[in-house]
Amino acid sequence: MERPRHQGMAKNTYMRWRLPLVCLLWEVAMIVLFGVFVRFGAEADAHWEEEKREMNLTSDIENDFYFRYPSFQDVHVMIFVGFGFLMTFLKRYGFGAVGFNFLLAAFGIQWALLMQGWFHSFKNGKILIGVENLINADFCVGSVCIAFGAILGKTSPIQLLVMTLFQVTLFSVNEYILLNLLHVKDAGGSMTIHTFGAYFGLTVTRILYRPNLEQSKDKQGSVYHSDLFAMIGTLYLWMYWPSFNSAISDHGDAQHRSAINTYCSLAACVLTTMAFSSMLQKKGKLDMVHIQNATLAGGVAVGTSAEMMLTPYGSLIVGSISGIVSTVGYVYFTPFLESRLHIQDTCGIHNLHAMPGLIGGIVGAITAAAATEDVYGKEGFIKAFDFTGVYQARTPSIQGGFQAAGIVVSLLMAFAGGAIVGGILKLPIWGDAAAENCFEDEVYWEVPEDEESDAYHMHNPDKPASP
Amino acid sequence: MERPRHQGMAKNTYMRWRLPLVCLLWEVAMIVLFGVFVRFGAEADAHWEEEKREMNLTSDIENDFYFRYPSFQDVHVMIFVGFGFLMTFLKRYGFGAVGFNFLLAAFGIQWALLMQGWFHSFKNGKILIGVENLINADFCVGSVCIAFGAILGKTSPIQLLVMTLFQVTLFSVNEYILLNLLHVKDAGGSMTIHTFGAYFGLTVTRILYRPNLEQSKDKQGSVYHSDLFAMIGTLYLWMYWPSFNSAISDHGDAQHRSAINTYCSLAACVLTTMAFSSMLQKKGKLDMVHIQNATLAGGVAVGTSAEMMLTPYGSLIVGSISGIVSTVGYVYFTPFLESRLHIQDTCGIHNLHAMPGLIGGIVGAITAAAATEDVYGKEGFIKAFDFTGVYQARTPSIQGGFQAAGIVVSLLMAFAGGAIVGGILKLPIWGDAAAENCFEDEVYWEVPEDEESDAYHMHNPDKPASP
Amino acid sequence: MERPRHQGMAKNTYMRWRLPLVCLLWEVAMIVLFGVFVRFGAEADAHWEEEKREMNLTSDIENDFYFRYPSFQDVHVMIFVGFGFLMTFLKRYGFGAVGFNFLLAAFGIQWALLMQGWFHSFKNGKILIGVENLINADFCVGSVCIAFGAILGKTSPIQLLVMTLFQVTLFSVNEYILLNLLHVKDAGGSMTIHTFGAYFGLTVTRILYRPNLEQSKDKQGSVYHSDLFAMIGTLYLWMYWPSFNSAISDHGDAQHRSAINTYCSLAACVLTTMAFSSMLQKKGKLDMVHIQNATLAGGVAVGTSAEMMLTPYGSLIVGSISGIVSTVGYVYFTPFLESRLHIQDTCGIHNLHAMPGLIGGIVGAITAAAATEDVYGKEGFIKAFDFTGVYQARTPSIQGGFQAAGIVVSLLMAFAGGAIVGGILKLPIWGDAAAENCFEDEVYWEVPEDEESDAYHMHNPDKPASP
Repeated sequence: MERPRHQGMAKNTYMRWRLPLVCLLWEVAMIVLFGVFVRFGAEADAHWEEEKREMNLTSDIENDFYFRYPSFQDVHVMIFVGFGFLMTFLKRYGFGAVGFNFLLAAFGIQWALLMQGWFHSFKNGKILIGVENLINADFCVGSVCIAFGAILGKTSPIQLLVMTLFQVTLFSVNEYILLNLLHVKDAGGSMTIHTFGAYFGLTVTRILYRPNLEQSKDKQGSVYHSDLFAMIGTLYLWMYWPSFNSAISDHGDAQHRSAINTYCSLAACVLTTMAFSSMLQKKGKLDMVHIQNATLAGGVAVGTSAEMMLTPYGSLIVGSISGIVSTVGYVYFTPFLESRLHIQDTCGIHNLHAMPGLIGGIVGAITAAAATEDVYGKEGFIKAFDFTGVYQARTPSIQGGFQAAGIVVSLLMAFAGGAIVGGILKLPIWGDAAAENCFEDEVYWEVPEDEESDAYHMHNPDKPASP
Repeated sequence: MERPRHQGMAKNTYMRWRLPLVCLLWEVAMIVLFGVFVRFGAEADAHWEEEKREMNLTSDIENDFYFRYPSFQDVHVMIFVGFGFLMTFLKRYGFGAVGFNFLLAAFGIQWALLMQGWFHSFKNGKILIGVENLINADFCVGSVCIAFGAILGKTSPIQLLVMTLFQVTLFSVNEYILLNLLHVKDAGGSMTIHTFGAYFGLTVTRILYRPNLEQSKDKQGSVYHSDLFAMIGTLYLWMYWPSFNSAISDHGDAQHRSAINTYCSLAACVLTTMAFSSMLQKKGKLDMVHIQNATLAGGVAVGTSAEMMLTPYGSLIVGSISGIVSTVGYVYFTPFLESRLHIQDTCGIHNLHAMPGLIGGIVGAITAAAATEDVYGKEGFIKAFDFTGVYQARTPSIQGGFQAAGIVVSLLMAFAGGAIVGGILKLPIWGDAAAENCFEDEVYWEVPEDEESDAYHMHNPDKPASP
Repeated sequence: MERPRHQGMAKNTYMRWRLPLVCLLWEVAMIVLFGVFVRFGAEADAHWEEEKREMNLTSDIENDFYFRYPSFQDVHVMIFVGFGFLMTFLKRYGFGAVGFNFLLAAFGIQWALLMQGWFHSFKNGKILIGVENLINADFCVGSVCIAFGAILGKTSPIQLLVMTLFQVTLFSVNEYILLNLLHVKDAGGSMTIHTFGAYFGLTVTRILYRPNLEQSKDKQGSVYHSDLFAMIGTLYLWMYWPSFNSAISDHGDAQHRSAINTYCSLAACVLTTMAFSSMLQKKGKLDMVHIQNATLAGGVAVGTSAEMMLTPYGSLIVGSISGIVSTVGYVYFTPFLESRLHIQDTCGIHNLHAMPGLIGGIVGAITAAAATEDVYGKEGFIKAFDFTGVYQARTPSIQGGFQAAGIVVSLLMAFAGGAIVGGILKLPIWGDAAAENCFEDEVYWEVPEDEESDAYHMHNPDKPASP
């Protein structure tokens, strides 16, 4: 069942030497860099027995592992199963969705451990890692998974690896500017992960614009069971989002609060998404695209403010609005972006991550600006915003301003970075497929030759009907 | 591929204004009520720093978040993936199973936070919430998911939302009567969740009896892959059930014990289910319906007693019996209920939740009545049954009597509530489908138009064969 | 859609009395043995209030439940969803893969609680169980799931139960020799679980060699969606493997370190697997078999050493190598094993578990032999290797030697045990299918009769085309 390759603009998608070379060289580089730089942090090192005594810790349960490991595992599931399966909705790109997401994320977390380590965990020439670093690496890769959503089906695995390399780098720089220079709070990453990741991906897909993509239009849809596979991704993202937004918050009340706010926001988001999905369609039927995606906007939109005293009803409001904005986006903005701005956004990340991410940044700025000692308590106020040391004099309104600045910086980094990386990915050496072969697993994968899979190939005129 | 609507009893299933109206109005109501009533509990509030000092807590790890959050996430998965995917077994109702479960649960948890909050967490005019409230809201919604199983495929999303509104309300009243007035123990909800939820749902489906349902008989079965999707639901329910039954037990040994008892009961249940599934079928083959459902009866049946000193062998006995009862139910009772009592129970909740729930209530009553200070220890005995304050004088046998009373109350509430709610749902304004369109996603969902999905439509005479 | 049974070597696969008899008798035996032997351990017993006081524990959070329960649940998912769905890749054996895995694991954990309990938790005539016993039971069953992979599709459920009974027994003996007599460290089970389980399974499948298996060759492949189902298994194994390797490590730094090492090893493994999968195929395309399996070798290969000071870069090296070895195995060794050694290894467990397990044992021996007080700290060194009591005088190099001995013992036990059990399973009384009916769910399961499933039966000449 070899696909005919002699079609019009056939491109060289042969991966046999290029993909292995990139994977192996980069893995060797990771080993060398890890060898030079990465060591266990104090809480993961066998010397911890002594450390514990010095720090007067009476119990092993004080190890950060027990505060964060369950959340880490939830985040891990979101990155690999959540994002991976969310993108399996395409009828013939399930292998690519899950498999390439797996590849880029596995590379990305290694590179993120290094990049983020140099910025945040560097001590005496070594990067000291613990469970919080693992979570942050997963977070960083989350922004690449988001960008992947915009170019899904149109890029080669090598392009994805190249994008991951650059995006992780830029993510870490942007994150450093926000968290360390601007002293911005963004525990759930509305700005650093979603806004940055989405606008980065949208810029890349704009530069990789394919004018003839309608040639593979028949493969851009879903089939019944691929929509169910995608719901696995949706639900795991939805269910574990409280862990995502609380994973690196301060121990105690902050983690607790983040989880509650996110839970509330996501619940509200489902209702407004369902409402608008039905309302915006003539026949009043629900659209799986909205249910799969817009229901998650509520998690994105409280990413910055979840650990603040947003309050449960505040979360409901934010979640409700973001569900509406996201669903409206799928119906009206996505077609507009494609036809007018030539932004081909396969998964609609503009609706799920970009706009809700902006909402999240803005809500975070407002919530911070509105903070009072009365609401937080004297100590809680200082702890929540880390108003210590050089930041002792910051007031809520100033913090709000810096939060807003964080949005702008993230946007600028995303546009500039996306433009550069998009340009690199446009080079004709990476093995991407021709327009008529987009959204098709057979280009890069061995696909089982069977009756059922034949059924999908109805539009392939070269193939005789099955016996 | 528009479905012909001009069939005999075609009904108005147009959702465009009704569904959005209900979703949006109710979400606004939630926002207002949350605004008036819901605030963070002490452990999720930024004032916790001061609280900690007052309570002499030396570590953040004493926050209830760390005792219960991992279990909460497991329960969350059970409600949304577990119940959602368990019901995807129907060949053409996967979207409805997962999607409507998502909708009703997302609304239900908000309303449950309020209802249960007023009864259990109301302090100075505010409902103070923490992770335990989130778990309880999920539990409450679990009972709605169970009832959904009885009417799966036969109701409109609006009917489901209406049912959720009422059922959550009644659940909370029943739970209050049991836990607060009767002072009954029921951590895993054999009575409050399963018995109540199942008999409520069975009463509703009785009242909504559809005499012509055999018109959609061809869609009531599964296909090969839909059975595998359903196994995802089954396994997540099965694996996480130890978290379900232990999630709100007392800290320490009680949570530990609940998990062990449930683990044992479920393991035994699988073996007896397999045995009877093979034995009750002429050809001796296993039936996926039994494996998907009856294997879970062991979790239901130790819901009340798991946190008691049921002992591992006691759990094996309970699990074994419930697997047998449940499988026998699928083979003999379900057809009987349908033909004689006109109870059309799509998922067989009578076998998975109703009968095992009753077993659970009875086992709980017996286990409580058999408790001795010798087995529990003096302090453990008082702690396990909360024999303090006004309940100081309760003896195990009296407690056993109250436990038994809890079963009866739950049954009465379920029958009465189900009858009233069933009557409301029978009004011809909610947009449910005609009998021949039951178990069919196309009524309420945009379904992808593709070859594969065409294959399912063999029985639709109006459609020409695919080219 | 009754399958014709009058084919050449048709065998009696009728399960109606045999399977129920085995299941019920064995469950009764479990109940009796649990009744005689199994009780709650101190931390799960209602007497814990008193225990806590005696041990001067100030908080319920010191209960081992809170140290291990989240990891336990992850391991539980790996056994039931991970292994179960990993094996659903076959186009017509999804029910058997998930369902029989469910059956054997549910029985196995009960028997393992007893066997391991007698060896490790026996006190005053009783086996005292807690969460660590549950994890160990799941681990033990993991080795049976591995062996199941070699004989997948070729055995009856009774054969699987018989194998489970014997393998759990032998596993426990082998584990006792390694952990207690040789005083070997193997927290993630490279030797006890993977090496033992895989070579046991390979020996069994060698003895059950079916010369005519090419008669069912058409069913040994996958279809598009079955490959996606298998990826669910893969990803859950991959994501939760850090929990697997850290689940029973010492509290504190050891658990923390195990998780980090495993995370690193697995990430590296994905890249080298992708590289070699593309490189070893003429067309340079990726093969789902490799992605589904070889990406997991990194978790197996650090099973012994993860809790040691392997260091993150050491983990990357081990993970990289094991990904290569495993992928090369799928391409070259599996066909060789089948054609020359008559080892028919359905899932390729030789590549995923046997070779990486050996690597894991060797890496563990080397890492132990290379340990120094400088690297571990004085106290950490003693704690990590348990060099106390009679083992006080052990040096790292001696420990390394014992570790190596552990590999040899595991291999010997696997070969000897596998030969005996294979011989037992060869008896013609267990109801296994004829060669032409292997890899076919219809033999033991009620399979839905529908259009879609008919599509699979193209090679069945006796069946008329569907109308």
